[in-house]
Amino acid sequence: MEATFRALSEHGYSELRMRDIGEELDVSRSLIHYHYDSKHDLISAFLEYIVEQYEGSVDVTEETDPWSELDRRIDQCLFGPEFDDGFGHWERMRVYHELFSQAQHDERHQEIFNRHYERIRGSITQVIERGIEEEMFRTVNADEIAQLITDIIHVARERKISLGQDDAPEQARRAIDTFVLASLVNPEFVVTSMKSSN
Amino acid sequence: MEATFRALSEHGYSELRMRDIGEELDVSRSLIHYHYDSKHDLISAFLEYIVEQYEGSVDVTEETDPWSELDRRIDQCLFGPEFDDGFGHWERMRVYHELFSQAQHDERHQEIFNRHYERIRGSITQVIERGIEEEMFRTVNADEIAQLITDIIHVARERKISLGQDDAPEQARRAIDTFVLASLVNPEFVVTSMKSSN
Repeated sequence: MEATFRALSEHGYSELRMRDIGEELDVSRSLIHYHYDSKHDLISAFLEYIVEQYEGSVDVTEETDPWSELDRRIDQCLFGPEFDDGFGHWERMRVYHELFSQAQHDERHQEIFNRHYERIRGSITQVIERGIEEEMFRTVNADEIAQLITDIIHVARERKISLGQDDAPEQARRAIDTFVLASLVNPEFVVTSMKSSN
Repeated sequence: MEATFRALSEHGYSELRMRDIGEELDVSRSLIHYHYDSKHDLISAFLEYIVEQYEGSVDVTEETDPWSELDRRIDQCLFGPEFDDGFGHWERMRVYHELFSQAQHDERHQEIFNRHYERIRGSITQVIERGIEEEMFRTVNADEIAQLITDIIHVARERKISLGQDDAPEQARRAIDTFVLASLVNPEFVVTSMKSSN
């Protein structure tokens, strides 16, 4: 999968051949084909891999409160986890966004992308729903808010990648805080916690 | 410019040659070169043309109140003006978004795009500032809000184009209303108008 990242980064999706991934790995094309029937299978596994790298590595446990979890998930998507091997967050995001913009040209590819996009949005929906249950958040439309957060993150990365607007991610973080997360605050919860801590 | 639209729609930016535009117009390549020194000049004029098609055609006069102007500008960007010739809003937006995603590969191209993006965002900033002056809107950070509106519009079009999510534009319109425009309402202005109408 790391070889796929590097091959996609170098060749782009439309020019990518199984052979390029083989070259990155120093193995034959047929070995790659042994594991992945087609470019579609590979891209599907690859998107799974990216989602896992970003979603799976968020530092949360069952004890993490919904605010902190939401915070960490947003920051992970915007600013990325740490990577050891020098192929960093923005190089990875450049590959991801290129795949995204090409998804329109292939129905199967588009389907895979929709599924993975749904998973990213879904984990934000879940933490908002948990916050509502625990009465930390107001009773809001969790799907709508998760969509908006996902959208703001997506476009900020794109403005940085496509237009070179390097402050876009920080700007997006402030916009999410001001316009979206502020609407989650349950004022009664704050009062209750303050009372119980007295 | 319409020929450029059609040629870009057919060939994509990276494959576009001046000759393709000539073919669309039934004129020679050299006539195109007579007007535009390079692909860059052409793309610059072309982006100007798109912005004008969307911005210039919004139905507003000096008497239009800031709420209505904002509404119409948002709808125009999301749902497009009417086009006579069968080459409609979404075909146009597909070309625009492809150019956007390719902007990263060329510094001059990126600069042109940034300038045009700034103009789109700027006209939203202006109407918000007018609303604040006329005390219809609260005193907010107009730049921040204009950026957020532009971003939500951009990503909704992209979700429709790249992922085939056809309800994205309507969803975006609701999100803008709920999370962004709601924060503009100046409660004192409503009271004042109600008083004066009694």
